Amino acid sequence: MNFNMINKPTLLLDEAKCRRNIRRMAQKARKHKLIFRPHLKTHQSHEVGRWLRKEGVDKITVSSVDMARYFADDGWEDLTIAFPLNILEMDEINELASRIRLNLLVESTESAKFLAEKLKHPAGVFIKIDAGYQRTGLPAEDITAIGKVLKELSEAEKILFKGFIVHSGNTYYAGSKEEVRNIHQESINKLQKLKDHFVQDHPDHILSIGDTPSCSMMDDFNGIDEIRPGNFVFYDVMQYQLGTCRAEDIAVALLCPVVAKHPGRREVVIYGGAVHLSKDSVQDEGKKIFGLLAPFDGNTWGTPYKNTLVRSLSQEHGIIRMEHPAFDEIGIGDLLAVLPVHSCLTLSAMRSLTTTTGKRLGVMLAV
Amino acid sequence: MNFNMINKPTLLLDEAKCRRNIRRMAQKARKHKLIFRPHLKTHQSHEVGRWLRKEGVDKITVSSVDMARYFADDGWEDLTIAFPLNILEMDEINELASRIRLNLLVESTESAKFLAEKLKHPAGVFIKIDAGYQRTGLPAEDITAIGKVLKELSEAEKILFKGFIVHSGNTYYAGSKEEVRNIHQESINKLQKLKDHFVQDHPDHILSIGDTPSCSMMDDFNGIDEIRPGNFVFYDVMQYQLGTCRAEDIAVALLCPVVAKHPGRREVVIYGGAVHLSKDSVQDEGKKIFGLLAPFDGNTWGTPYKNTLVRSLSQEHGIIRMEHPAFDEIGIGDLLAVLPVHSCLTLSAMRSLTTTTGKRLGVMLAV
Repeated sequence: MNFNMINKPTLLLDEAKCRRNIRRMAQKARKHKLIFRPHLKTHQSHEVGRWLRKEGVDKITVSSVDMARYFADDGWEDLTIAFPLNILEMDEINELASRIRLNLLVESTESAKFLAEKLKHPAGVFIKIDAGYQRTGLPAEDITAIGKVLKELSEAEKILFKGFIVHSGNTYYAGSKEEVRNIHQESINKLQKLKDHFVQDHPDHILSIGDTPSCSMMDDFNGIDEIRPGNFVFYDVMQYQLGTCRAEDIAVALLCPVVAKHPGRREVVIYGGAVHLSKDSVQDEGKKIFGLLAPFDGNTWGTPYKNTLVRSLSQEHGIIRMEHPAFDEIGIGDLLAVLPVHSCLTLSAMRSLTTTTGKRLGVMLAV
Repeated sequence: MNFNMINKPTLLLDEAKCRRNIRRMAQKARKHKLIFRPHLKTHQSHEVGRWLRKEGVDKITVSSVDMARYFADDGWEDLTIAFPLNILEMDEINELASRIRLNLLVESTESAKFLAEKLKHPAGVFIKIDAGYQRTGLPAEDITAIGKVLKELSEAEKILFKGFIVHSGNTYYAGSKEEVRNIHQESINKLQKLKDHFVQDHPDHILSIGDTPSCSMMDDFNGIDEIRPGNFVFYDVMQYQLGTCRAEDIAVALLCPVVAKHPGRREVVIYGGAVHLSKDSVQDEGKKIFGLLAPFDGNTWGTPYKNTLVRSLSQEHGIIRMEHPAFDEIGIGDLLAVLPVHSCLTLSAMRSLTTTTGKRLGVMLAV
């Protein structure tokens, strides 16, 4: 690609790394005999979706009704909207249910009743379970409440009860692989108890888990039927820091022009801020960081520089602090490769994706 | 407006509040005989720009070359790009300089030299000064370095040296009005010293300051020629918490559908996450918050509920913790008004703006 054409923040995708990440996860799912239903919110791209299809994927997860429509329009026929039913979008949901195999999530009798009444075409429904993350879902221990929702679903003519679904987002806050393992194992145990309880009346229901740290790092999926990781296609600094991926697995980087240099405080100012990277951050040795800088050879990026971090972001500015000797070689007008803290949010902020070979990919709501 | 039509996160603008905020700042600028050059990055909207024009504004500030072009295309003829010169965008800059009065920022001899060589049409240039924020700019104390840049600018045929420009973004981290005053006063003092030093050789140069906290809260602008606040058109929770505005001045709110309710932990799950609000946060009594909830009467929003906050954001989910009795009245499918922590980033994430009377406004890169 002719990088001379890049003159403002540009989200680059290394297609080879991305395809390798996809292949690895697809192989893992096959090895463990798991249904592989990846979450497509990370890339929101028809093209990347097609790379998944090439690895045998025919079931996907999305996070909104809009995203479901975007991917249904590219030929996906089996979609789970992994977000609690938004009853205000019932018309759009019915339109989708009329043309694809759609799965929805509910976590209350109220939503289940609403759906039972309004659904015009058959759809699958999962009950969202909270295994400890405390975001959404019915507590896994609350068999009574879960049973009530299940009763509503079972009695509805158009609803097929699919099973129990969990997202252990608390693995993102884990301090070690051991902690991820504990969270993962606890989720599995809780889901299995639910299955044991309800399997007699609902013999075909499945158990579905989602988070990228568990799906990437763990090898015990005993009793689980389906995985829905999303971030693994790109990975990012957050996953790298968690130990979920290696630096060389990070498949996206934001290329940013250098606009100023402050040797006195060893800082570089880049055109690349919160509206490009998102304001998500992680802690690194007690400091908040908004990205890492990696050497870029005009082809791809390598392992992040040591003692170098994006220390702050304004709307359009990024400030990089760099104690590394490579600082001296940086000049105004250079392009630097910033590895994002949270690639899903960076993609969503940028709404554009260019491969390192210069191909512009189609992205939902592309600018 | 018929709010029944809203079924997903929607950024609402109260036009009356916004126009009132604009009028108040325009009056203040007139009273202090300041050039009022508002920053339009907060709204990125032709329409809101026209409301500014109605209050007599004919000079504006933007944060990128793209934004300059967007507003130049709506008839603005005097623009400052308040961002260090990105030398990679020289062609676009020359195109703009050929048709409007354009002002640019430099902070190094390298950039000044580049501009002197490449600029094809006359343009104004400010030297960016760092008065203590440590983001961009030459340290105000470094008269030697500033003099060198100024020499480059003065010798360039197409460059008109405009003056010194500062953004005291450190007021955003101030703990009190007193602290804002100290930062503001220090900026003024440093700029005045610069003016005193360079005024003999450059009698027409001006001093320009920018941040919304100083421009909103302060009344001493002695020696300052120009103000460039941006956020004041909308304000937000960050400004409210700083004491920069009253709750009733916040002119935008994100309307979000309720998708789940957890009475046990007094939490509501909304469709409205980091891709809508942005991940920016402030501290409130030791807790990180991502927004506040305000009562919405179908017309506008009021003072935020006490003991209620957006405690976490995922990509599409927001979790509201609400110790307020109004919790009991919230039902699934209701629309809640969330006041954003940082309205500039929320607008940038949403790329859409609907008035409370149902008018959809044009926004740069609108979706």
